[in-house]
Amino acid sequence: MPPVAGVRLATAAAGIRYAGRTDVLLALLDPGTAVSGVFTRSKCPSAAVDWCRARLKGSSARALVVNSGNANAFTGKSGRAATKLTADIAAKALQCAPGDVFLASTGVIGEPLDASKFAGVMDRLAADAAPGRWQEAANAIMTTDTFPKGAAALVRFGSKAVTICGIAKGAGMIAPDMATMLSFVFTDAPIAPAVLKTLLREGVEDTFNAVTIDGDTSTSDTLLAFATGAAAAQGIAAFKRLSDPRLTAFRKGFNAVLGDLAEQVARDGEGARKLIEVVVEGAKSKKSARRIALSIANSPLVKTAIGGEDANWGRIVMAVGKAGEPANRDRLSIWFNGIRVAHKGERDPGYDEAAVSTAMKKPEIALKVALGIGKGRDRVLTCDLTKDYIAINGDYRS
Amino acid sequence: MPPVAGVRLATAAAGIRYAGRTDVLLALLDPGTAVSGVFTRSKCPSAAVDWCRARLKGSSARALVVNSGNANAFTGKSGRAATKLTADIAAKALQCAPGDVFLASTGVIGEPLDASKFAGVMDRLAADAAPGRWQEAANAIMTTDTFPKGAAALVRFGSKAVTICGIAKGAGMIAPDMATMLSFVFTDAPIAPAVLKTLLREGVEDTFNAVTIDGDTSTSDTLLAFATGAAAAQGIAAFKRLSDPRLTAFRKGFNAVLGDLAEQVARDGEGARKLIEVVVEGAKSKKSARRIALSIANSPLVKTAIGGEDANWGRIVMAVGKAGEPANRDRLSIWFNGIRVAHKGERDPGYDEAAVSTAMKKPEIALKVALGIGKGRDRVLTCDLTKDYIAINGDYRS
Repeated sequence: MPPVAGVRLATAAAGIRYAGRTDVLLALLDPGTAVSGVFTRSKCPSAAVDWCRARLKGSSARALVVNSGNANAFTGKSGRAATKLTADIAAKALQCAPGDVFLASTGVIGEPLDASKFAGVMDRLAADAAPGRWQEAANAIMTTDTFPKGAAALVRFGSKAVTICGIAKGAGMIAPDMATMLSFVFTDAPIAPAVLKTLLREGVEDTFNAVTIDGDTSTSDTLLAFATGAAAAQGIAAFKRLSDPRLTAFRKGFNAVLGDLAEQVARDGEGARKLIEVVVEGAKSKKSARRIALSIANSPLVKTAIGGEDANWGRIVMAVGKAGEPANRDRLSIWFNGIRVAHKGERDPGYDEAAVSTAMKKPEIALKVALGIGKGRDRVLTCDLTKDYIAINGDYRS
Repeated sequence: MPPVAGVRLATAAAGIRYAGRTDVLLALLDPGTAVSGVFTRSKCPSAAVDWCRARLKGSSARALVVNSGNANAFTGKSGRAATKLTADIAAKALQCAPGDVFLASTGVIGEPLDASKFAGVMDRLAADAAPGRWQEAANAIMTTDTFPKGAAALVRFGSKAVTICGIAKGAGMIAPDMATMLSFVFTDAPIAPAVLKTLLREGVEDTFNAVTIDGDTSTSDTLLAFATGAAAAQGIAAFKRLSDPRLTAFRKGFNAVLGDLAEQVARDGEGARKLIEVVVEGAKSKKSARRIALSIANSPLVKTAIGGEDANWGRIVMAVGKAGEPANRDRLSIWFNGIRVAHKGERDPGYDEAAVSTAMKKPEIALKVALGIGKGRDRVLTCDLTKDYIAINGDYRS
């Protein structure tokens, strides 16, 4: 992944919770950086989410501080104090206003976050920050993730180009709606805050909002997009209006980064061995197709069946039925990896269990459901449910 | 469990799917038996559910035929034909109208049900049927259940009494709303169909509708209540109106049977090692409390934590937050088996992890959440989520 002009990164081990690994990320942003964000819809959001929501009124950013190991959620007054202290420590080290510091925390809920630990590392982070350190950045924000997640796109405008780079972390307590994990996307494109806001809200709809691991919505879900505007130095004019024709290309690159990160999050769901794509078509509307796709993607019986490499399409029918959306049992057709197993409400006459069994052994399962009642279509990504999910989550705090 | 006058039971091994066990239950009901039922809200219900819904218009019943091993769901025209054939076979053997035969099927979805297999056993079932065979009846309808489920109540009216007996089966694909599994309740009380209907609809609300195993709603959920009226021979007058003062006592016994069966279903959830009671109080309304309780009870992260004997109350906060119901993070308090672990939005100052750890080892976990914003209260039962659930459902059809 290439550097993004105007963004410098540094990581450190502040000893928040983990030993022997980095757990703090600092992103330094050039003056004039625009920012937008989407957050969890939880009624019990983390202190960092509250902090960012309040800061977004200003729409400009100078720094992002992320820690892993502690979510600073359900920490009451001490949680609010911790966000303020973190921002003050960063503002002092970076010589900016505390209100231009954005925060995100991920990890255990309900444990007080000792923000004073940031004081010991912030000066060095500020001094060390350098462009392009995406790998280290992605590593520092991981919790139960098994691999760091990053994606990049280059969008050309004639001989000039802007860069978009993003990182993300999963891997459990992930469900729509809203950006469903921590993710940070950076670009050097000069984009007005209002335009960035719209791009982000539209972009998450079919990417992060179409991913579910376990149906459990985090208290901390945060997706922040930063546009430093540094590419203006190349002569790229500012994107001030949504009608700007150059936005078509930019949006494509931006959404590709969001989509790539979202897919990585689904692929790395806790305990996952298979990436599952659920496509629902022929629904009454896209919204209805989304609801049915999520009902399938969140069903433990569907997910365990796929984990067991069993093309148990009866459970797909169950999940369609429980979604509560318009559906006609006798028009349903279902495919696993392109093989039709059910047609018009019954087992497909040509259904060959051996062929399907072979298809089910693949690491990626494409599940398609045709409802046959309309033109609504949607797609959701998820993963299988395995004993490892239970092991990870039955013994997370110990 | 005592016999219920007017009800005779018989079971047989028809070889629907299982070997070496019974898989068909016949309940013979005396003429004049009133019937009412509640069913799955799935948009893809089984053929047997369709059959019963249509038959309930008549409100009288002579027989109930239940099979395990095959749900006769998503079986299209052949499924409809199978219900008709089963009813015809039973009607012929019992010399009643096919429309007075009620049906329920449980097991794999999507496999055609060979109803002709019932022909080989129905005459003998009819001849063998005898009162009080509850244990055999409960055994014959089991699928992944680990124990047969039955409950009984005797309701006295002076020197006379009526009996209420019920059986049920779980154990996966269980979620509200509607009666969330197969369950059949019988009484000899002379109850008018309209009264029985109301008793049943009211009775399920805080019993079967307040149980969830995995949030997956079955295509086959069926709860039928039969009132033979045979106790009229003792001189017990018919219950014709909801204003009948004797209904207070009857309702108490009836609801106790429903509640007992529902608790057994939760206790025997697939892979379950712990029964979990979720009580939510201080919510805006009972309805809101129910939604929050279900959000907690259906959360895989809450269920795995309890399976791991970890008082991870942060996940309770998460589940409250994702419910979307009115809640104030800073007023929340949480108890595990009577020990308060969180208070007013923060970790309880007196929180002793060792004491809670000991409490978490118990086979029954009472989880209480106080929201502090209203007077709404509700209670839901569920179970923990273990590796055994994954094992059972990742390898169910093989």
